[in-house]
Amino acid sequence: MDAVRRLLPELSTSLRKGNCGRMGVIGGSMEYTGAPYFAAISMLKVGADLSHVFSPPDAAPVIKSYSPELIVHPNLVPGSWLQRLDSLLVGPGLGREEKSMDVARESILEAQRIDCPLVVDAVGHPLSLIFELSAAAAAASQQSQHKPIILTPNAVEMDRLAQKVLQAATLGRPLDEIKEIASKVAGLLNMHIFVKGPIDMFAAADGSVRLFDTEGTPRRPGGIGDCLSGVLTVFALWAHRSNEPLSTAAEAASFFVRECSRRAYKEIGRGMTATDVIAQVAPLVKHID
Amino acid sequence: MDAVRRLLPELSTSLRKGNCGRMGVIGGSMEYTGAPYFAAISMLKVGADLSHVFSPPDAAPVIKSYSPELIVHPNLVPGSWLQRLDSLLVGPGLGREEKSMDVARESILEAQRIDCPLVVDAVGHPLSLIFELSAAAAAASQQSQHKPIILTPNAVEMDRLAQKVLQAATLGRPLDEIKEIASKVAGLLNMHIFVKGPIDMFAAADGSVRLFDTEGTPRRPGGIGDCLSGVLTVFALWAHRSNEPLSTAAEAASFFVRECSRRAYKEIGRGMTATDVIAQVAPLVKHID
Repeated sequence: MDAVRRLLPELSTSLRKGNCGRMGVIGGSMEYTGAPYFAAISMLKVGADLSHVFSPPDAAPVIKSYSPELIVHPNLVPGSWLQRLDSLLVGPGLGREEKSMDVARESILEAQRIDCPLVVDAVGHPLSLIFELSAAAAAASQQSQHKPIILTPNAVEMDRLAQKVLQAATLGRPLDEIKEIASKVAGLLNMHIFVKGPIDMFAAADGSVRLFDTEGTPRRPGGIGDCLSGVLTVFALWAHRSNEPLSTAAEAASFFVRECSRRAYKEIGRGMTATDVIAQVAPLVKHID
Repeated sequence: MDAVRRLLPELSTSLRKGNCGRMGVIGGSMEYTGAPYFAAISMLKVGADLSHVFSPPDAAPVIKSYSPELIVHPNLVPGSWLQRLDSLLVGPGLGREEKSMDVARESILEAQRIDCPLVVDAVGHPLSLIFELSAAAAAASQQSQHKPIILTPNAVEMDRLAQKVLQAATLGRPLDEIKEIASKVAGLLNMHIFVKGPIDMFAAADGSVRLFDTEGTPRRPGGIGDCLSGVLTVFALWAHRSNEPLSTAAEAASFFVRECSRRAYKEIGRGMTATDVIAQVAPLVKHID
């Protein structure tokens, strides 16, 4: 809770639209329209000012229909919009097409060039894309030590990543061994890795590892990971601006989404969905503020 | 209520997304977009993790727009997705086109091949499709005794089915005679038949018949049958996994949707719709859990 409080920007009447964060999400596909929505709406509810979503032309109108709050561009390529964004999340619901992978790779490189804090989510993607994203992010990261790049694999994706990078599996291993492997992978790729799981793990590029195990929910409906990626992207921006370490953003995001999930489960029970978790975002920020 | 409680999977923080059920719905048409939505969203609200809907390209964007929680594929053919599903519901809103019938038949046969528990709903379909689906399911079922196949006709569809299979009408007959006919039809087709009506009836493939007459609602808006099919598909999966008989899943689904309907009618009155019934799903699961 303290981590979240440290990151919240001070509000005042002299602020202008956009000052608390002009966010971008590159994602969505013909199949997955919910994922970029969950990420982008979570960004607004946690306190960012604007959420731009960049999606394929056949997915964009559907994503628009979920909420008038989002600015949805019918194009996966942000182009000149990128320079007007403060922070970018790449990946939610991006799908598996070759073209989407190319766009993701290009956008990551471009975002790095203009110093845009970046979270890369690879939920549900095949190994090849996870690795391509990782490699692109790593390459970009090596150009500068100061840009926060965070990958957000789940346990299965982390296992694939570790196998590819280190030839070491992580699934089913004791926590201490996973920590060690995650630390090495983060160091080798020169980026931060937030591993989503029963216990969240943040392995920083400098090799340090932190664990977050606030109580959450035993339910696992789709979309909660997208909510986390969205909140994390906002917290990463705020941490970047206030010179807090990125691990504070990770701690804050893990606590925040777990607490929202716990509240949703307590209120709704087994039938809770990602929408119920998102309904808790604004009340929880208000409570912490 | 006890039947529902027996089926609910135990929740724990070590569960992964998908463990409580990756569901599929093949359905929808240019005219009927609500039916697959009602079925798929009921699946999530009763406690499954993921709902994939497979619909024609002109229906899919509309179904997507109803809820970001659903993963809607603009294709009636699940193809390789089928292997990633735990259970499948075929039929809601499928329409009457020849092509849809072919897809339904193929999907049923394919689902049987990969041991995917299956519910076939034929609401509103002409006799030829009901019988084609029945025949396909029966043929597939004969390859294995262990796969739960459930047909869910309403009273009129049951009458047509009985006339076709046994040259015996059921409409207007005394309950005892309907039971006998349903038992024979289920045995001949080698599948389970859940007959939706003022009193729900479950005729198992082994010839046993059970009746469920929990109080429901005197109102009959469209969509409640789709809600039932969705809930039944989830309960059938959970019964399959915990070696409970399918009649327990039928009892649980009948009780569950009738109780949701009773609560919706009590709260909303004559103006209740399927959406009001679905709003009762999560609270009722929470109450039972």
